[in-house]
Amino acid sequence: MTEFEEKIGYVFKNPAYLENALTHSSYANEKGCRDNERLEFLGDSVLSIIVSEYLYKALRDDSEGDLSKIRASLVCEHGLFELSKKIQLSKYIHLGKGEEHTGGRTRPSVVSDAFEALLAAIFLDSDFVTAKKWLLSLMHDELIAASHQKNLGDYKTMLQEHTQKGNRGRVTYSLIAENGPDHNKRFECAVLIDGKAVANGVGSSKKDAEQNAAKNALSAYEKL
Amino acid sequence: MTEFEEKIGYVFKNPAYLENALTHSSYANEKGCRDNERLEFLGDSVLSIIVSEYLYKALRDDSEGDLSKIRASLVCEHGLFELSKKIQLSKYIHLGKGEEHTGGRTRPSVVSDAFEALLAAIFLDSDFVTAKKWLLSLMHDELIAASHQKNLGDYKTMLQEHTQKGNRGRVTYSLIAENGPDHNKRFECAVLIDGKAVANGVGSSKKDAEQNAAKNALSAYEKL
Repeated sequence: MTEFEEKIGYVFKNPAYLENALTHSSYANEKGCRDNERLEFLGDSVLSIIVSEYLYKALRDDSEGDLSKIRASLVCEHGLFELSKKIQLSKYIHLGKGEEHTGGRTRPSVVSDAFEALLAAIFLDSDFVTAKKWLLSLMHDELIAASHQKNLGDYKTMLQEHTQKGNRGRVTYSLIAENGPDHNKRFECAVLIDGKAVANGVGSSKKDAEQNAAKNALSAYEKL
Repeated sequence: MTEFEEKIGYVFKNPAYLENALTHSSYANEKGCRDNERLEFLGDSVLSIIVSEYLYKALRDDSEGDLSKIRASLVCEHGLFELSKKIQLSKYIHLGKGEEHTGGRTRPSVVSDAFEALLAAIFLDSDFVTAKKWLLSLMHDELIAASHQKNLGDYKTMLQEHTQKGNRGRVTYSLIAENGPDHNKRFECAVLIDGKAVANGVGSSKKDAEQNAAKNALSAYEKL
């Protein structure tokens, strides 16, 4: 096992895949060997299906458009560059002398391309399920953050999920009060779980009041 | 097994995936059910990795740029629309009344989107390997054609692959004759397999003569 294989937690059956994935075109041109661009071509698709499947399953109420936006934020150059830091990928890339001198080792495009190539190398060396497990484990925090970011502010959905997971019963909302003049209304709603009021919320619309009621219910749960 | 499942050669364990894949947004809007757009989001990636892996392995000497071009020609709307005809997909899509009246059933975008959704449905209902086998079998002719199209005219590469596959020995070329004035040269080359001449070719450059020699050698093999 090489130092890098230990770092990524994957040992190659065919180390040629790993070598190829780490070979930047500048090094390949100098040495007359193959660069990692074909692997990057494949890795882009491997990355896409794994992240897409995760998001499809994790965010069941999001539209195609929302899923696309979240995926784009995860698989962009910056995202992959940050991910690569976890495995110190840039340290292990084979670079040509010119590229090394002009700072290629810290260039996000160089490192993120090598990341995609590495993912393809693992996929080819093993199988889809292994590559998926490897990536999901490495991306775990980013995937969780991206999924929750979407729900930020959508406390009703979060409460719905929370109660479904705990088999806590059906969530309903009830308008308690509606006060004030038309241009400055104030609504108060209660959230009920299996008919039992668990929290109240106020807002300038019924929807806002319900969101705040759900937020208060979630806070109450967290304190339990 | 439904008629359509028989047609596609895949029986769903969870038929809800199939229903969802066949549901166009126009129908979903009318009936208040879920459309196939989220599945299409995932299917796009499933399609991409399967075609990419195939091309990566089939075209070992093609650059990333060439692979991207060939992939684009295979996974474009037109390509998927043509593929969908093989399974008569358009016949089975659930369309809203308005969409039906304005010819949605024969609209390439509607059908190709449903095709991607169907692929995702098979992937989710089974696994990556099953979805891959299903798609590769359906796309077999298109993949072969796209791979060969790239090699069209490159008889040297084709001969190289042919001899490697049959363990027929090393291919070399030898210049036999070079005639004519500078502005109208005529080259003649021989192609040798393990040192034994198997065919000749002529051309206006050494490269052309070699390509023609390789072409003649391939023709000779085909006749054997």
